[in-house]
Amino acid sequence: MDDTLTAAAPLDDRRAARRAIDCDVHPAVPSIEALTPYLSAYWQEQIRQSGFKGPIDSAYPLSAATSARPDVPAAHSGSLAEQLSAMQAHVLAPQHVVCGILNCAYAVDSLHNPDAAAALASAVNDWLAAEWLAREPRLRASLVVPSQYPELAAREIERLGGHPGFVQVLLPVRSAAPYGNRRFHPLFAAAARHDLVVGIHFGGAPGNPPTPVGWPSFYLEEYAGMASVFQSQLLSLISEGLFDQFPTLRVVLIESGCTWLPALMWRFDKEWKGLRREVPWVRRLPSDYIREHVRLTLQPFDAPPDPGHLLRLVDRLGSEEMLLFATDYPHWHGDAPEPVLPDMPTQALARKIMYDNACALYRL
Amino acid sequence: MDDTLTAAAPLDDRRAARRAIDCDVHPAVPSIEALTPYLSAYWQEQIRQSGFKGPIDSAYPLSAATSARPDVPAAHSGSLAEQLSAMQAHVLAPQHVVCGILNCAYAVDSLHNPDAAAALASAVNDWLAAEWLAREPRLRASLVVPSQYPELAAREIERLGGHPGFVQVLLPVRSAAPYGNRRFHPLFAAAARHDLVVGIHFGGAPGNPPTPVGWPSFYLEEYAGMASVFQSQLLSLISEGLFDQFPTLRVVLIESGCTWLPALMWRFDKEWKGLRREVPWVRRLPSDYIREHVRLTLQPFDAPPDPGHLLRLVDRLGSEEMLLFATDYPHWHGDAPEPVLPDMPTQALARKIMYDNACALYRL
Repeated sequence: MDDTLTAAAPLDDRRAARRAIDCDVHPAVPSIEALTPYLSAYWQEQIRQSGFKGPIDSAYPLSAATSARPDVPAAHSGSLAEQLSAMQAHVLAPQHVVCGILNCAYAVDSLHNPDAAAALASAVNDWLAAEWLAREPRLRASLVVPSQYPELAAREIERLGGHPGFVQVLLPVRSAAPYGNRRFHPLFAAAARHDLVVGIHFGGAPGNPPTPVGWPSFYLEEYAGMASVFQSQLLSLISEGLFDQFPTLRVVLIESGCTWLPALMWRFDKEWKGLRREVPWVRRLPSDYIREHVRLTLQPFDAPPDPGHLLRLVDRLGSEEMLLFATDYPHWHGDAPEPVLPDMPTQALARKIMYDNACALYRL
Repeated sequence: MDDTLTAAAPLDDRRAARRAIDCDVHPAVPSIEALTPYLSAYWQEQIRQSGFKGPIDSAYPLSAATSARPDVPAAHSGSLAEQLSAMQAHVLAPQHVVCGILNCAYAVDSLHNPDAAAALASAVNDWLAAEWLAREPRLRASLVVPSQYPELAAREIERLGGHPGFVQVLLPVRSAAPYGNRRFHPLFAAAARHDLVVGIHFGGAPGNPPTPVGWPSFYLEEYAGMASVFQSQLLSLISEGLFDQFPTLRVVLIESGCTWLPALMWRFDKEWKGLRREVPWVRRLPSDYIREHVRLTLQPFDAPPDPGHLLRLVDRLGSEEMLLFATDYPHWHGDAPEPVLPDMPTQALARKIMYDNACALYRL
């Protein structure tokens, strides 16, 4: 743990009150060439011979101007040093952010060749360790894994789960099967073994449609509807008894929205009472498992611009420990980084959301 | 309109205050033989020769004891007269229900033969008209249509849309494509032409999985997750501009739950502000369209058993006109018919939910 987080000396109160952990920061792989040093000779040759440019379905395509703040150097033209120093200036300084969690949206889940997916995931992780974590002690990172091949994902978690910079396994929320399905147990077992959080992030490119009624026509439907995908995953994780099997496992829903959760908890609890004999391993109210094991990042906040909503949401969630501050940097859609919590209802709750909850979750 | 609804003489106040319209009542086709009189010689022969028993994926299978109250005669053994008199006793009498809307969950949407789906839908509708509507003036019905073949569905709507007993077109919420998709416009155009409500009901058997992440393992996931399917359909209907194209069209979400809707409206409004250039025909806030064109039945109510929740929900919906009383008879999962609204917050709101909103919606 770096000094900033574990300083023995008491922090200046005002500074302590404002310090934060940013739970969703996105570094971008500039090009497939950046990964070359971290790929075996075989994959270097394959990529060279086939002209492969890397997975194209990444949630933050490098060429899309809408994906990034205009003052962030374009990943494909600017140097990595420029990317890092922009992140230091934009994320780590103004928010008094003492720690940022890197989530690299490199869409290895879209690849059909299992070995290619595994090799690229490993390369991204080695690149993250060497080019980001080694250079900036305030950063932590999520492991990129070939989530569509749970055994290969588990192998990658075993390979790097002991690295102190990796605190989380990153899964795209869209998948070909619900994550509670037993086929994914090797992946969750490996995460639990290394005490890594599992972060489920907006997006993914598994091949199947992003709605339960087929392909939508417009991105508006897909974006607003992504909350439904999170709902399906949450129903699956609880119904399959994942948290009884892995009692220390914690899951974070990242860029999921959060105002939909109370209604889901009410509905889930009610129907569980009627159908619980079908899932006898689910021994408590689903909402109990959710409150204990699930966290959500706050950005983008899907409520009307009324500061009272956050307090009412926390009240309906029945927990002050569930929400986490995040900027989603450099993605820019809605909230500017500074005033994410403009009228935080109570100072104690603000500190939990900005810092304490993430600190406990990631054991920082 | 029958006398009970249009009585010129002022109603007894107490009776008027308690009168209700039940927006979700389920008659069951006892067996394929019941439809024989309403099928052509060709389809009678096809069914006889193939031993076809009818679609098997109906949401209320006749053999499932859990689907019905124990005091309802089993559809496959009791006579139709017994079914009707049970409905008269259970639905139309104790609730002071002056009108019930029949939604027959006969899964023609599961059939791959387009002509068979159309023939069976027509047979069910003729059976509903002859055996139910003609015998009980307090009943109205929804048209069963081959929703997976929009042109054939439109033809059925043209055939019977002028019948005064049919007030709605019934679509299962699960479908292979989102209902806003242009392929469904002939269906909605026909409904609008006949001023029929489109009722979207829990369930369906289109072949594709009921979640955006593939097949769940347990019915608990499917049941609780059905709210997500409604969310996807609603996003599609608005994003495709259906209500600008058919300005008089009204849609009811039946057995959908309703506490998830405020969060969806917030999220949808916010993202529409960012992405509206993609859907320039959506000229107002999505929540405006929803409040104007969409209604929801109240049963089963997916909130904690706290009477204040209903009032808070109405406040968050921003409308007292959206909720409709329904028993879901004879399905029995949670609420008994009598105390559905045990502590109705205000008498005026109670009357809207129990009677006025449905009266306006179905133009009764």
